[in-house]
Amino acid sequence: MAGNDDIRKKIERDAVTLAELVANRDRRGIARAISYVEDHTPVGRELLNQIFTTTGSARRIGITGPPGSGKSTFVNELIQILRSRGDRVGVLAVDPSSPFSGGAILGDRIRMTSCFGDDGLFVRSMASRGSLGGVAAATYAASEVLEAAGFDWILIETVGVGQSELEVVELADTTVLLLVPESGDSVQAMKAGIMEGADIFVVNKFDREGGDRLIQDIQTTIDLTGWAREENWRPPICPTKAVMSEGITEVLAEIENHYEWLSKDQARFREVRKKKIRQRIQVLLNRAILEGAWSVANLDERLKESIDQIEAREISLYGWVDSMLKGWHYRRAR
Amino acid sequence: MAGNDDIRKKIERDAVTLAELVANRDRRGIARAISYVEDHTPVGRELLNQIFTTTGSARRIGITGPPGSGKSTFVNELIQILRSRGDRVGVLAVDPSSPFSGGAILGDRIRMTSCFGDDGLFVRSMASRGSLGGVAAATYAASEVLEAAGFDWILIETVGVGQSELEVVELADTTVLLLVPESGDSVQAMKAGIMEGADIFVVNKFDREGGDRLIQDIQTTIDLTGWAREENWRPPICPTKAVMSEGITEVLAEIENHYEWLSKDQARFREVRKKKIRQRIQVLLNRAILEGAWSVANLDERLKESIDQIEAREISLYGWVDSMLKGWHYRRAR
Repeated sequence: MAGNDDIRKKIERDAVTLAELVANRDRRGIARAISYVEDHTPVGRELLNQIFTTTGSARRIGITGPPGSGKSTFVNELIQILRSRGDRVGVLAVDPSSPFSGGAILGDRIRMTSCFGDDGLFVRSMASRGSLGGVAAATYAASEVLEAAGFDWILIETVGVGQSELEVVELADTTVLLLVPESGDSVQAMKAGIMEGADIFVVNKFDREGGDRLIQDIQTTIDLTGWAREENWRPPICPTKAVMSEGITEVLAEIENHYEWLSKDQARFREVRKKKIRQRIQVLLNRAILEGAWSVANLDERLKESIDQIEAREISLYGWVDSMLKGWHYRRAR
Repeated sequence: MAGNDDIRKKIERDAVTLAELVANRDRRGIARAISYVEDHTPVGRELLNQIFTTTGSARRIGITGPPGSGKSTFVNELIQILRSRGDRVGVLAVDPSSPFSGGAILGDRIRMTSCFGDDGLFVRSMASRGSLGGVAAATYAASEVLEAAGFDWILIETVGVGQSELEVVELADTTVLLLVPESGDSVQAMKAGIMEGADIFVVNKFDREGGDRLIQDIQTTIDLTGWAREENWRPPICPTKAVMSEGITEVLAEIENHYEWLSKDQARFREVRKKKIRQRIQVLLNRAILEGAWSVANLDERLKESIDQIEAREISLYGWVDSMLKGWHYRRAR
């Protein structure tokens, strides 16, 4: 037991040290802290516990859209406007990681950062192929670290648009969905399921053919579905040409509007925050439950033992899954 | 205990009845069976156990691509070719469900089906907004039901392209990724992470400007990444014009080629099948673990009790998550 106490104390000590580095805006400390929370290490979990009281005021903006919609350029423009106001900006780019491609997209941006030696900008690429669906959890935890490090804005950018990308950006306070005129005939295909997650629509590369029609299509979808009722936020549609830096200021104004709308009615604000807390807890808890289950029950090893028999159909795949589930018990803590 | 035995027997009896209906290709029986396995009911789980020995020979084809890439038209054409050969085709369309939009896309196809009264075709729309990431598990389980009902081909179609869509189609034996010339400049953005999951690339709407360039871009990506080494399958790139029914036969030929390539080397075939089994088990087990955890530990109720304090920051969100995890114990079954 003494050994466990010692380990516990060491974890706490390490977390305190790391939390201080983060609070002092030490870049290496921030990077290490993000790695720890991303990997869900004991120190990382303790760190999140310790910094929790210092977080809650940064603005988290989720930015998503289909491949080719110009998210990176858009985010770069947004960073420049925010930096020119003196705001500190953290960026988390959820990037399909692959041994050969990981982080390639961010190359330019990282070079830009180090080139200017800008202390008010921190860019981090997050792996998105975590086996246990832990991307959203890891990204949210990383945003807590950035907030504890005094960043005013946390931009969360995903590559691609799908359910898991949506899950990532919905943990943000405001979600921006980028579309391009080419995706005009795809608005119907994207359907309300994905569009409903958006607080602000951006029609990027607006100068291309079909820009007006796309705006009309989004408008119609919003009207038809009726999710933007009087009491709800009506998502604005902003035309932009990110490569020409046009329209980005207007998008930022709408992001501010959305925040004002959220906070002007305190009861509603608290409801929205509770909904976000519920989503965040679900994501964090699910990851922890799965990680715990696989490691405590040694599932990898046991699957290795049984896979030949399952492949040969001597054991039912479903029967095996059921037998693994039987060992779990829950004892409610007092 | 007698009560439990009675319940157990009733579940088994119901599953046997349902399995017979499925084996007799009763359409209502199939529909009910899919609903049961989708909802993960005890009867559904028992049914999967019972039909396991009868499955394993149907060809599962996953079809994905960005919104607007023409997946529905493509799938319709594929269905017609397969039906004209007399093959029986089951279709599972993973569709972002929403109270107002659910299944709208499939409207035409369903009408077509009932119009022709075709017994060799079964189309089912799957919900994709399951809270516990259970879409892939539900879709895979539904494909087992279709196979037990004697369908030779199971086409699994997703709306959108992202990590979770990929997870769904990767459970299939062969994965087809549709792209359109407009997505030309997005090939780089999609990155190897998503492209790597594809066994066959289809450049749909090939007659539009940029078709050749897109093929070149995909080719380059495959070459650069080097995932198609000599010992691996080299994904072919098929140009199609689905609205004109052009090129679909060639895609089908490549699907057959992929299967032949898989099966000609028995050792490799078994390795690939084991990899798929591992993916399928992971997906099924994770869903079951999460569902079990939330219901047994009564997490919904307990979150409701604590959410006000968490929102007021009297309790740390991370601390709360950790405290929920402490009650779990695993006892390995003998």
